[in-house]
This record gives sequence, structure tokens and C-alpha cells, in this order.
Amino acid sequence: MRDDIRKNFASDNVTPACPAVMQAIADANVGNVPSYGHDTLSLTLNQRFGEVFGAEVAVFPVATGTATNSLALSAMVPPYGAVLCDQSAHINTEEGGAPEFFTQGAKLIGIPSPEGRMDPQALPPVLQHNREKGVLAPPFAALSLTQATEWGTTYPCKTITQLTSIAHEYGLTVHMDGSRLGNAIAFLDCTPAETTWQAGIDVLSFGGTKAGAMAAEAIIFFLNERTRPMVASMAHRIKRSGHSWSKQRFLAAQLLALIDNDVWLENCRHANIMCQRLLHGLHKHPAAHLPFATESNEIFVVLPEPQLDSLREEGYQFYTYPTPQGVPGKLVRFVTSFYTRPEDVDALLTSLVS
Amino acid sequence: MRDDIRKNFASDNVTPACPAVMQAIADANVGNVPSYGHDTLSLTLNQRFGEVFGAEVAVFPVATGTATNSLALSAMVPPYGAVLCDQSAHINTEEGGAPEFFTQGAKLIGIPSPEGRMDPQALPPVLQHNREKGVLAPPFAALSLTQATEWGTTYPCKTITQLTSIAHEYGLTVHMDGSRLGNAIAFLDCTPAETTWQAGIDVLSFGGTKAGAMAAEAIIFFLNERTRPMVASMAHRIKRSGHSWSKQRFLAAQLLALIDNDVWLENCRHANIMCQRLLHGLHKHPAAHLPFATESNEIFVVLPEPQLDSLREEGYQFYTYPTPQGVPGKLVRFVTSFYTRPEDVDALLTSLVS
Amino acid sequence: MRDDIRKNFASDNVTPACPAVMQAIADANVGNVPSYGHDTLSLTLNQRFGEVFGAEVAVFPVATGTATNSLALSAMVPPYGAVLCDQSAHINTEEGGAPEFFTQGAKLIGIPSPEGRMDPQALPPVLQHNREKGVLAPPFAALSLTQATEWGTTYPCKTITQLTSIAHEYGLTVHMDGSRLGNAIAFLDCTPAETTWQAGIDVLSFGGTKAGAMAAEAIIFFLNERTRPMVASMAHRIKRSGHSWSKQRFLAAQLLALIDNDVWLENCRHANIMCQRLLHGLHKHPAAHLPFATESNEIFVVLPEPQLDSLREEGYQFYTYPTPQGVPGKLVRFVTSFYTRPEDVDALLTSLVS
Amino acid sequence: MRDDIRKNFASDNVTPACPAVMQAIADANVGNVPSYGHDTLSLTLNQRFGEVFGAEVAVFPVATGTATNSLALSAMVPPYGAVLCDQSAHINTEEGGAPEFFTQGAKLIGIPSPEGRMDPQALPPVLQHNREKGVLAPPFAALSLTQATEWGTTYPCKTITQLTSIAHEYGLTVHMDGSRLGNAIAFLDCTPAETTWQAGIDVLSFGGTKAGAMAAEAIIFFLNERTRPMVASMAHRIKRSGHSWSKQRFLAAQLLALIDNDVWLENCRHANIMCQRLLHGLHKHPAAHLPFATESNEIFVVLPEPQLDSLREEGYQFYTYPTPQGVPGKLVRFVTSFYTRPEDVDALLTSLVS
Repeated sequence: MRDDIRKNFASDNVTPACPAVMQAIADANVGNVPSYGHDTLSLTLNQRFGEVFGAEVAVFPVATGTATNSLALSAMVPPYGAVLCDQSAHINTEEGGAPEFFTQGAKLIGIPSPEGRMDPQALPPVLQHNREKGVLAPPFAALSLTQATEWGTTYPCKTITQLTSIAHEYGLTVHMDGSRLGNAIAFLDCTPAETTWQAGIDVLSFGGTKAGAMAAEAIIFFLNERTRPMVASMAHRIKRSGHSWSKQRFLAAQLLALIDNDVWLENCRHANIMCQRLLHGLHKHPAAHLPFATESNEIFVVLPEPQLDSLREEGYQFYTYPTPQGVPGKLVRFVTSFYTRPEDVDALLTSLVS
Repeated sequence: MRDDIRKNFASDNVTPACPAVMQAIADANVGNVPSYGHDTLSLTLNQRFGEVFGAEVAVFPVATGTATNSLALSAMVPPYGAVLCDQSAHINTEEGGAPEFFTQGAKLIGIPSPEGRMDPQALPPVLQHNREKGVLAPPFAALSLTQATEWGTTYPCKTITQLTSIAHEYGLTVHMDGSRLGNAIAFLDCTPAETTWQAGIDVLSFGGTKAGAMAAEAIIFFLNERTRPMVASMAHRIKRSGHSWSKQRFLAAQLLALIDNDVWLENCRHANIMCQRLLHGLHKHPAAHLPFATESNEIFVVLPEPQLDSLREEGYQFYTYPTPQGVPGKLVRFVTSFYTRPEDVDALLTSLVS
Repeated sequence: MRDDIRKNFASDNVTPACPAVMQAIADANVGNVPSYGHDTLSLTLNQRFGEVFGAEVAVFPVATGTATNSLALSAMVPPYGAVLCDQSAHINTEEGGAPEFFTQGAKLIGIPSPEGRMDPQALPPVLQHNREKGVLAPPFAALSLTQATEWGTTYPCKTITQLTSIAHEYGLTVHMDGSRLGNAIAFLDCTPAETTWQAGIDVLSFGGTKAGAMAAEAIIFFLNERTRPMVASMAHRIKRSGHSWSKQRFLAAQLLALIDNDVWLENCRHANIMCQRLLHGLHKHPAAHLPFATESNEIFVVLPEPQLDSLREEGYQFYTYPTPQGVPGKLVRFVTSFYTRPEDVDALLTSLVS
Repeated sequence: MRDDIRKNFASDNVTPACPAVMQAIADANVGNVPSYGHDTLSLTLNQRFGEVFGAEVAVFPVATGTATNSLALSAMVPPYGAVLCDQSAHINTEEGGAPEFFTQGAKLIGIPSPEGRMDPQALPPVLQHNREKGVLAPPFAALSLTQATEWGTTYPCKTITQLTSIAHEYGLTVHMDGSRLGNAIAFLDCTPAETTWQAGIDVLSFGGTKAGAMAAEAIIFFLNERTRPMVASMAHRIKRSGHSWSKQRFLAAQLLALIDNDVWLENCRHANIMCQRLLHGLHKHPAAHLPFATESNEIFVVLPEPQLDSLREEGYQFYTYPTPQGVPGKLVRFVTSFYTRPEDVDALLTSLVS
């Protein structure tokens, strides 16, 4: 059974914490220090993330991605408002209604798109219709994009700029769910700035856990005239939702360990390379059908069901999804991570392709 | 400045994690394992805590005490209901409105009591009046007690039994905020069972962070006909509030490390002993006035203001409180912990009493 | 301009109150009587509506349809749950997020259907998928149907039975938005019982305002093992949302006036007849396209845009909708009511068809 | 029993609607008119109330006082904020948690005062302490005053100015619950302006129902730099809570009937006179104890319990309250209204004093 620890491709959140994070936690575990973010590590977050993004930022560390997304949206959208997102967005389908809870009942309106990437052309009619409904429909107050998307694709920076321009024109602010931001940046070979605030993103959910942390994410406000008024409420929102750690040094330590020496980007780059290795192997599979481009560390592939049963018997773990109509087989997701080794991918491929 | 890590008596949450917890985290950091509580450590929580309390329990681990209290109450009280508590209760005064957020607007009604301990005789008139108000007042659905209390006192088990009997008679369920439960148990020299479910407690917030964890608490339902219907909703409530860790093994590992070999109780016992050492020293202080009994790891003392300024100059940290009227000086709280050494107490006393 | 009071086909809520309702209000305006539902009129509601529906019911009067739907759902769905409905449902698109507010953030999930009628075959896969998502998706707790639908069609009683059977099998309770229930009953020529509780409906929003009231609707629980536990919370929910009238006699009087002598059904029958009169006239229109069956008091028709401009110039009022793709012209809705006279319809037709 | 319609002194909400209101409703019941506030009556509300108060105002009509107070507060206080009020305030004790519901969980903090009137000197320490708590306590965002108070007293305009000045200094906006505003104005012999915006009130709950309406109140924003940003959200908040009437003309008609020719003030003045008549009679009662000044249309009096039983047997209705300690007898409230006749008071006095 011990080998199974290398056969879990279900998600990048099944991983341990990476060594740099574990070391940082141990280093932080010294002495009494002020609680609730008044420790010296927490106090450097704004500056250090500001350097990473080349921008003035306000950073709020929390332990989970769901909290990060939901807290961000709660500062962007009034309870009577609405969030526009892709139909497949994590906030819309995987977070148990957390955005509705934190925003106090705002409505998420998801629009369909073929690969999890919203089409800029799809936005104006939806925004216009909403505006014309007046009080009958909750007014859109935020657009939320996911980078990389739920289907393993990424938004080109230019597309993000188009989307945020339209959103801003209609008075919305723009959130990015960056649970796998590092993977997107590694794929696009761009800077953190280029795919976020330089493309018009106002508020970012910075993903740490999937990139190697134990439990650490950050809500990052890129300071501008739209976001400055939001920042003041965040400490209250975080406390009120029980997401303020008394021993916050341990959240800060994880995040700082990830951005020191680009550990997060290195981890994500490795995960992407493992994913491409898997992709190349799958191309040799006679029956594999890949419905989406593979642009991060997730690969979606339709495989024959008997083969999936065999994999499971061997100890492999992975998620399956409703399969596109008319395609024989079952849609499967394999996720790689910083912890995936080439030999782990090769072993999986051997089971699959041989 | 380095010495100051021993001069922080502001709270027991300024501490590092204890060695057993750190070791458990390191031990858990191996391999890919199922996420969101399907790991082997998480799966043993119910059994292991059941052994500690000698009862059938359902255990839900989260990272903060505010989340623990609020999630517990959200399962006990409908949005249109009310919680009865002591006026000084942490849920009423220190959690930034989190109980109101998680319960979706239930009302906390705090009644005054001299030492933070609710008086059983005070309950019936309040409960009766509420019942008679009908729809005009949110109906009481839960009673919340704090053990040890906010003023460093503890409830005798017999008093808890009296309070829970009245509450149950009026149809309320009973919650215990056990942020410092270990300190109360150590002081009372009772079993965990005696001061909780055997005294009528239905739901417990089990405090781990102040007892030595990095960030780990647990909502514990003592299974009975009142609590069984609550348990089913908990996984939804935790996910929806962003308190479900993907890498939950790290929460479970901390909690298990605390209860293994009674580490939490040993840590709390040590903290109490340090507090009594401080108390004995303070008795020699000519001007010190102690308004409450010292029955856990918190000591409240009125001291002359100039002396407090001196302490601060020496690097000491502590909280001050509104001082009882007519008493000269300033009310101060000193909190000891598993991390406090005898020499740390003695140094403080030297500064104070000499 | 005075003639324009007969040219408003925008909705059946632009109408005055019908004579029977006005008389009942005047009759009720005598003397001091107990407030908040303790008056004699309010106290007869359960019995009188029980007679109308041939069932044991609990009736709660409020002033608006949005409040009725939302209060009903708030008793059926926990804050962390979900409501399944048609994509076009009023609760999903026209109520400004009220269901989300009253349920405290439950999620409405709308599925598409060609004529606003949910297809029983569409339900099982959606319900099954939701069940499999576990805590990741808010669990469905209620199904909501609209009778008559938003597109002027009606559900055959048999279809309702099929839908409610599936819903109950999956543990959902079933709500009917009966804002135009009288129109549906008049069209189907069935009894109030047949299209509601006998077809499996648990909770009904009984529409009064569009049927001739000034401002009066009712939440009606058909008492069974699913609904009995909901009833107890309703008085609290209504008070807490500010929907409890101190002078409740005036709500009760309106509702009783509507059901006395079947005034509501007569009013709705008249409205339907006026709508059929309009339909017959439109059939002579060379360019009119009618996308939906006309089965209540609403008619949807695609007309050439220049003609609509002319109508508006003549003082006519009506709503327009996004037009089905590829169809030339503009989708328009005309709504008739108890207040519509044959000559009003004929005048409109003259303007349209001549 | 018919005579009992004159023996109900329980509240001023047991009354019918006054003739002017009934006439206005009948007059409004003509023709189809635009719904949801686009009718001509609704469109004059801002101007007409502006004339009454001599100020620029934004007026939002709803049917109940609880909705009025709660909707007002929801625009003034964020979900994570707090409202400061008198402990006896209606919003704090009589509205079933509605303010908590509409504000999405804001906390009401009531401070005690002898006669239901907050003492300006009591505010600064409470506001200062709240400020120092930081994120631990929901920050105060609004002060709410009740004019006339829950105990039948009134605030002198000068005291209101003192309270609002302190509140504004601390960044709070100020709400007035004017459920019995007309009675206070009649007692103080001041203008509507003097006791509201000229004394620093930002938002007013204008009470109509107790002053003679069927069901009509208004949220009135006195436009200034603090209130202008609140106004924009109100239409959304009202729709979302189901308080937007489709046939809104009937709300507007009631309110306009009240302010036309000062009907509301005349009604309230009459009620006050009846109350003073009752007061004079009670002074002759050998055992009556009056704990509060009688400054509106409510009188609180401690009477011997046997006498109350007799009154009830005669058909009289009234509320009783927890009696001040040490006072023999029972605290009773009698409320007079526009509908109370001198002979009704005299009959009550005959039963009481003779």
C-alpha cells in the first residue's frame, strides 16, 4: 500500500507540504510573538508580495482557497448584488455555496464556454440585460476569472485585458481565482504582474496550498481607486468568519517560503512538466480523447471504462466527470504536482498505454 | 529584544506550537493522501476523542476557536433564534460578530454575572420572559457556557449540571466554549467527561491552539437525541465557511498529538502551576488587588499605572481592561502557558514586587 | 391620457383592486381589534382555505408575491442547501435575489426547458449529480414549480405528479409558485386540489394580487409529515422579515373576499377569456409569430418592431423580451386581467391587425 | 361584545384606518397604472414629504414599521458592524430579530437608561471602548433613537442634537425610529424638521400605521453627504426583501392622505389629549404609581393586580410588563389613538378609579 502515495493523481491538494514550507514553519516556531498578525513575518507580507507583483498590494493570509475566494468576493459585491463567472468556475460548482455565504446571499451567474475560458464577446449582452432588469435582478458587481481554468486551460493575458476592460466599463471590479496561478504563469511564461493587475485584475486569490504549502493562501488587493475602499473592511470580514489565526506567523511563514526564491513557480513549473510528460505518453494511447488543451498541471482525457477499473485496482486515484455526449468512454482528470516524479508518470503511462 | 519572547504575557495564543505537535506535523508530511478528511489520521478522530471523553462523539476539526464556537452554534440555533450566554462571553465580546455571521443573524443575549459564571437562578426568569414574548423576541435555542470563564474562574461540575438541566427543560441545547477546557479540568481535577457531557453539555468547542497546537480546535458533538440531527449538517457548514482544509491530515495530526498521552492536559496543568506561582508572588505586592479567583491560567490584577509603564518599558506585554469603579490603578491580565518557565514568572515578579 | 388606463397590457399587477376586495376592506375597517393576526378574520383563514383546497392547511398571509415565495422557500431549504427550478422561474430571474436573502444564501439552480415547464426526465440526472458532489455542492432541498409558468403555459396535473414523485424520492419537498394559479386552474378546468396537494405539492404561494387584491398573497402549507415541522417557524420568519402586519385584518379581508364565491377563479377565468380573444385576433396578423402555447392570461408574440413603436405612440404599454434567434421582429408580452374589457382587447387588435 | 371595540387599549395598532386614508385608497382604485412605484402618486412622495420636513428627502414607502426600521439600518450598517441603541428600543426587543436579518447579522448593542432616553454622557465611553476593540468587536456604524420612546417619554430636540453630534464625531450615522413621531411632535410642539434633520437625524422611520394608516410607513433619508450613498441601494434592498408592492399606489395614497392637511399630526394630537385625560383621571387613583413621564399617547402605570383582573373581565385589553422591583402591583400600559373618544377614556377611568 505504501506505493500508493505515488499513485494518487486525484488532485494537487493530496500532496504533502514542500520542504521549504516545512522548514519555514519550524523556523517560525520560536518564542512568544504577538498574535493576530502583529508578528514580524506577517508584517512583511505586503512588501514582499509587492515585490513579487511589482505593485502596491494589501495581502491577507488565510488557510483555504474557498475562504480566499469568498472573502475576496464579499468585499467586492453587496449582498444584493451578483457575480459573473464561467459556468464551470470553482466558486460556482465546488465550494458548497461559500461565495453565497460570505457575500450574504449575492447571486453567482455562470455563463457557458467551451474550455472554461469566458469569451469577451459573451459579456456585453449579459451585462446589458442585467442593467436593464433594474431591481428585478441582482446587479452585477464583480467578474470572476479562473487562471488556470477548471479545465486545465489558461487565459492569454490579452484575453484577460479584454474581459477586465468590459467589466470595468460596466462598473464591475474583477477577481481572479488563482488557485493554480503559478501553473498558468509557468505555462504562459509571463510575469505575475502581466497576468494579473497589468491585465486589469483588481483582486487576486493567490493559491499556495496546491503549490506546496500546508494550508496557506492569500487575498491580494492590487491597490487602485476601486480596491482601496474594500481593504478597510477585510480585517473585520476575516475575524468575523473565523479565518484570523491567533498564531498567524505560521500562515505568513508558509507564504513567504513559497515566494522566496520563486519556490511556488518552480513547484508549479515542475508540475506542468510532469503533466506534459503524461500528455505525450497519452498521445500514444489508441483510444484516448483529449477534449481540452493541456495548459497547466491538469489533464482531462476520455478513456475506456474497463481500463479505469484496472487502474483503480492497481491503487490509482483520480476523478471522473460527466462525459461529453457521443464520446465513448469516461472523462478522467489526472493532476500532477511538485511532488510528482517522472517515474510516477511513467508508471501510470505503462499501466495505461502498454 | 530576544529576551522579549519570554516577556509576553498577553495571551496563551502568543506561544509557539509544543514539540509533540511539531513532531506530529512532520510525521504527517509524507506522501499523497486523500484530501478533505479522508486521510487515515482524520478518520481516527471520532474514536480517539471518544476514548478521551468516554462517550460516543462526532468530531470536526477546524483551525480557529472563533470558527469552532460559531460553527457549533450555527448547528444549534436557527437564524431567527437566540443564544443565552454570560455578558462577558468570548462569543459575545471578542469574536467580531462571528456567531451572528455563522448563525445567519441569531441574537446573542448576555446576562451579567460577577465572575463570568452564570448563576443558575438567573436563568428561569430570562427564559420564561423570552417564551412569553412569542414572535417578538428571537426564541432561545442554545445556552453557551465558557469553561474556564473569561475572568479566569471555573464552573464546578455541579453548577454546570444545574445550568444544563434548566436549559434542557426550556428546550435549549447547551454549548461549552472550551477554549481553555484543559486548564479548567486541571484546576478542577476532574475527568473530561465529568465537566462536559456528564454535566449535560451537548456540544463542545475543544480548544487546542492555546494548549499547544499551531492552529487546531475541534467541534465535538456528544451524541444524543438532541445532537444527532445537528451532526448531518456539519460537513456542509464547514465547507461553506471555507473551514475545510484540503490537507486535513495536518489538522488531525495536531489534535491527535495533543490528546496522545494527555499532552494537552499536561500543558494546561503546567500553565496553571505557573499562574499559581505568579499569584503567590502577587500576594506579596502591597497594592495589588485581585478581583477574581484565579482558577486557570489567567490572572486579573489591579496594579498602579506607573508600575505598568515600567513593565512595558522592560519589554513586557499584557492586556489592560476597564477597571472596576472606585478601585485605584488599572486592571491587568497576565496569562501563562505551557511555554512559560518558572524563571519567566520570577523575573516578572521581581519587576513587579521588588 | 385618461383612456390609457385601458391600454396598459404590461402586467396583471397594473390593475386596481376588484370591487369585492374593496368592499371587504371597508367592511373590516370597524373598531379596535386585536393586532398581528389575532383578529376574527385572520383566525378563519385556515378553515376557509382548507375548504377551498379540500385539505388541512396552515395559511400565512403577506402582502407580496416575492415575500410569499421567499418565505416559503426559507422554511423548506437550509441556508447551505439548494432549490431546483426552471431557468425562467420568477424566483430565479425577477425577484431581485429575494430567495437568496430569505433562505440566507441557498443556491437556486435553474435548468432550461423550452416552454417554462420542467421536464420530469430532466430531473433525475441533475439530482443524482448533486447527490454525488457531497459537500462540494449545496444539496437540493426543494423543487419549485410555477403554475401557470412564466411563458404563459401550464403544467398538466399529471406532469406535476411525475415531478413531485421524483423530488420526494430524492428527499426534496415541493413548492408551487401560484402567482397565477387561478389562471392555470381556469385553463385546466381542474379543482384547486388536483393541481396542488393531490399532485404532490407541499407548499403553495397563493397569488391574490394579480387575481384582484390590493396587496394580498398567502403561503399555504398542505399539512403532511414533510410540512408539519416547517409550520412552527413561520410566524418567526414572517415577523423577522417585517411581513407581519399589525392591522392584519386588512390582509385577511382581501384573501377571504377572493375565495368567497370563487371571486379569484371568476376573475382569472375572465382574464383567460380576454387572452383567448386576443389570441384569436392575432391569428389574423400576417407577421405574428407565437412561440408558446397560450394557456393562461399571458400571450407572447413576436411582432415587427415598427408596429410596436406605433402602439407605444398610441399609449399602449407592454414588455418586450430577448427575441428567439433567427426570428425577425421583437418578442412582446400582453397580459390580460379581470379588469380587461372585450372592447379593450378589440381596440388593441384594431391597432395591431388592421 | 360589540362595545369591546372601544375597550382595547393594548396598542395604537389595534385601530382601524382613519377616514382620510380610506378615502384616499378608494380614490386611488381607478384604472390600470404603472406598477412598482411608477404611478403618479408614488412619484410625488419625495416632493410632498420634502415640504413637510422642509428638506430634500428620498422617501421609500413600505407596509410595516419593522420593515422600515430594518431596511433603514441595513443601508446604514455593514453586516460586520454594530448599532448603538437604548436597551428598551423596539428594534432591540420587539422586532423578532428583524434588524439582525436585514443587516445580515450586525450586532445591536443596547445601553440602559431610566426612561428609555439615551443619555448623551453615556455615549462617548461606549463608542471609545468599541473603537479600541478593533476587529474583536463589530464596529459601531449607526446610532438609533426612538421618538417618542418605548416608555412614552420624548427626547427634547436639544438632547437629540447632543446625541447626534457625538455619533457623527465617531463616524456613525443616526437613525430615528419615528413609529410615534407625530405624538412626539405634538407633545413637543415643534416642527417635523426641528426634531429630525435639524437635530442631526440622517434617516427616519416615519410611522404611518399607528397615526391612522391601514399599513403604511416610510423610510426617509434626509439628503446629505452621509446619506446620499445609502439611497442608491434602497430599491434593491426593498425588492430583495419582498417589500416592494406591485400596486404601490395604495401605499403612496395612504401616506399622502396622512400628510395632507396634517392629518397625521391631528390624529396624534388627539391621541395625546386622550392620554392626558387618562393621566389626569389616574392621578385620583389612590394606588396608582406612574414610573415615567407621560409625553405621548402611552401611559405606564402600576396598578393593583385584582383591579386588572376586573378590567379584563369587563372586556378591557392592555399589556402588562415586568414591574419595577419593590413596587406592589403590576405595571400596565394603556395606549390611546386617533380613534379613542373622551367617553372611552372616561369609561375606563370609571372602572379604574371609582
